[in-house]
Amino acid sequence: MKLQVLLTGNELMAGDTIDSNSSMIAELITDYGWRIDKKVTVGDDLKLLEQQIRDLAANCDVLIINGGLGPTVDDMTSLALANTTGNPIAEHPDALAHLSQWCEQKGFRLNASNLKQTLLPAGASIIANARGSAVGIRMNIGNCLVLATPGVPNELKAMMTNEIIPLLAAQFSSDYIKTQRLAVFGLGESSIQERVNKHYPDWPDDVELGFRASMPVLEVKLTTRGQDASKKIDEWRGKIIDLIDDHLLGDMPLNLAQSVIAAAKQHKLSICTAESCTGGRIAAELTGVAGSSEVFPGGIVSYSNALKQQLLGVSESSLNTDGAVSKSVVKQMAEGALNTVGADLVIAVTGIAGPDGGSEDKPVGTVWLAWGSRENLKIEKFFLPADRHLFQTLVTALGLDLIRRHILSIAGLPELMTRRRA
Amino acid sequence: MKLQVLLTGNELMAGDTIDSNSSMIAELITDYGWRIDKKVTVGDDLKLLEQQIRDLAANCDVLIINGGLGPTVDDMTSLALANTTGNPIAEHPDALAHLSQWCEQKGFRLNASNLKQTLLPAGASIIANARGSAVGIRMNIGNCLVLATPGVPNELKAMMTNEIIPLLAAQFSSDYIKTQRLAVFGLGESSIQERVNKHYPDWPDDVELGFRASMPVLEVKLTTRGQDASKKIDEWRGKIIDLIDDHLLGDMPLNLAQSVIAAAKQHKLSICTAESCTGGRIAAELTGVAGSSEVFPGGIVSYSNALKQQLLGVSESSLNTDGAVSKSVVKQMAEGALNTVGADLVIAVTGIAGPDGGSEDKPVGTVWLAWGSRENLKIEKFFLPADRHLFQTLVTALGLDLIRRHILSIAGLPELMTRRRA
Repeated sequence: MKLQVLLTGNELMAGDTIDSNSSMIAELITDYGWRIDKKVTVGDDLKLLEQQIRDLAANCDVLIINGGLGPTVDDMTSLALANTTGNPIAEHPDALAHLSQWCEQKGFRLNASNLKQTLLPAGASIIANARGSAVGIRMNIGNCLVLATPGVPNELKAMMTNEIIPLLAAQFSSDYIKTQRLAVFGLGESSIQERVNKHYPDWPDDVELGFRASMPVLEVKLTTRGQDASKKIDEWRGKIIDLIDDHLLGDMPLNLAQSVIAAAKQHKLSICTAESCTGGRIAAELTGVAGSSEVFPGGIVSYSNALKQQLLGVSESSLNTDGAVSKSVVKQMAEGALNTVGADLVIAVTGIAGPDGGSEDKPVGTVWLAWGSRENLKIEKFFLPADRHLFQTLVTALGLDLIRRHILSIAGLPELMTRRRA
Repeated sequence: MKLQVLLTGNELMAGDTIDSNSSMIAELITDYGWRIDKKVTVGDDLKLLEQQIRDLAANCDVLIINGGLGPTVDDMTSLALANTTGNPIAEHPDALAHLSQWCEQKGFRLNASNLKQTLLPAGASIIANARGSAVGIRMNIGNCLVLATPGVPNELKAMMTNEIIPLLAAQFSSDYIKTQRLAVFGLGESSIQERVNKHYPDWPDDVELGFRASMPVLEVKLTTRGQDASKKIDEWRGKIIDLIDDHLLGDMPLNLAQSVIAAAKQHKLSICTAESCTGGRIAAELTGVAGSSEVFPGGIVSYSNALKQQLLGVSESSLNTDGAVSKSVVKQMAEGALNTVGADLVIAVTGIAGPDGGSEDKPVGTVWLAWGSRENLKIEKFFLPADRHLFQTLVTALGLDLIRRHILSIAGLPELMTRRRA
């Protein structure tokens, strides 16, 4: 089945509204092995709408039109369908019955603008709308089944689930499709592709490999279809997991903090933080995870040097001699946090987020991290030149991944970061 | 100028990714009086891509293609452009120079997959990418100017702003259009609309009023056009600012933390934090602002009760009698932070983020905030039932706005929050 989507609405063209409806449609149909072949989006322009309906309907089996069924003058899907097919629009008894019932139920009075919603192209039938006043429109244009749906997301969702998907399932064959999504940190898209090319030059065409950067995590997605989809995807999932190796966080959706909290719980280890340049973001990420209180007692944001001394016991001489962004200071921050908070593990960071504060010796992007336990404290310097926001995001992610690796006894650094070691 | 957009990427078809790039493009060009006529979205399918390029380029002056410039096999915009025009692809010296420089700067090794990004259709020129490895592609197909741009949002934004908009402005006429965007916190869209209807029933049709929720800040947008656009927009901007009153943060782009840091600098006041349920997010927001070190020495994330006692001097009896989420504890947290950190002002929060930890007395969403100075410490209880993430976002925003109001000697609470007072 070839399915296309036509979205209509000025708000979709002006940048005010981001289209999430077409993603919802795609997600709802994906389990049936169907996918959207092409999406077209136009404003509320009758001529343009007619032309798109004509072009799209001539080239697919199913056309879902979304939007333009409302009561106002800028809603013109019904009229465009009528003009395209050369049928007049007329009051449809089923649409009128739906609208009357809906108004009665809500205690609304039927008004003239609402009545516009009962005008359908001759020959069309309605699609029930459980959630709103606008019925959907179902008609054939040539060999194409055209389904016009409302733009309000919850109305669309109900109509897709209750009406349209059963209709399509009865009329078109569905496919066996399987998808797997993996969360990866510290390994680039091109490195993964290279490993695949090297180890599996025969990677099968029907196991689609996709990547999506969802900063700072990379999502690796495998899709396959057919009767043996489950078996095939398990096989190739195993192979890609081997290639991703210790950069694998787990199955999506998963962020770094969740994987750290899970690892800490599993190993019954508590974590504290001592943050300078990330200013509380590592703590905030950890406490963003439900149930984090079990392993995260708290942390210290020592942004000023005075607080580094006062709360973490960093020595004045180290601050004066080595500077706040130095090995000796990050070490003392880590030890200070372990002492003060009394956790098993620590993540400590001090760096130069910029845009000011850099020097020739220590340019913006320089950062020291210390992580681990009192007995096994690791210290590294990295260079992550980026704007302030991105720098803080990267350092936060790096800190979280390093403590994840520590807890899981993974020896190496994330590949992307080995090149950033300074 | 007739401008169309072609978006490419399987992730856009599968429901994984919601397209925000085309909205960004629309927003960036709107100040020039340009708009997108039509958007088409297709997956990573070479034949389909070629056909769309051909169809769209034949029917517009400018075609912006977004996506498909990456290093992997599913990136095929360059090849599609080459096939459409009948030109071969070949290594482009400018693209190679850009990529080499970019890799050097980042300390990466140029690999084979990266080199794919230097293959451009013969006759094309590059569009500089200040933020990433993929250069944009500029070429003519018939009378249509075709501009291929990267799918990564921050790369696209930089390329649009620095390269493409100046290019279009030089080649096509732009309209006199003026836009003003105001950042507002704690006042709802319908409240603002109601105030406008009441005070300005004669609000002119040609001064468009738009709203966009950019959580937790509301963006209010005024747009007008014509020779007197500047004068007209200044006049109506003044009127809407009067209506928004003390909920105005300033001109967009502006977040709450920026307005707090600006106010603190202006009044030469330092701020510290004592956070429980927000777990460091308030500190992280403040330190996200460049130059925040001038007024933010640091803060304490006291997630456990033990740390509340140990680092902030909260009494064991208060914790036992009143519980961690109580007026007495938030007061002691605030005083403790002021003592320990020694700042002029404090934001302290303790609440129940959920999903667990609620009770009949103190359901999930209950939160106490204390803010101000030692001599003038304000304490309020709010009820913000929401999922964990949204709760933390709202409490962070509320804490920041309350200290902004304190610094600026604004008496009231934000309107939306007066209803949430518990």
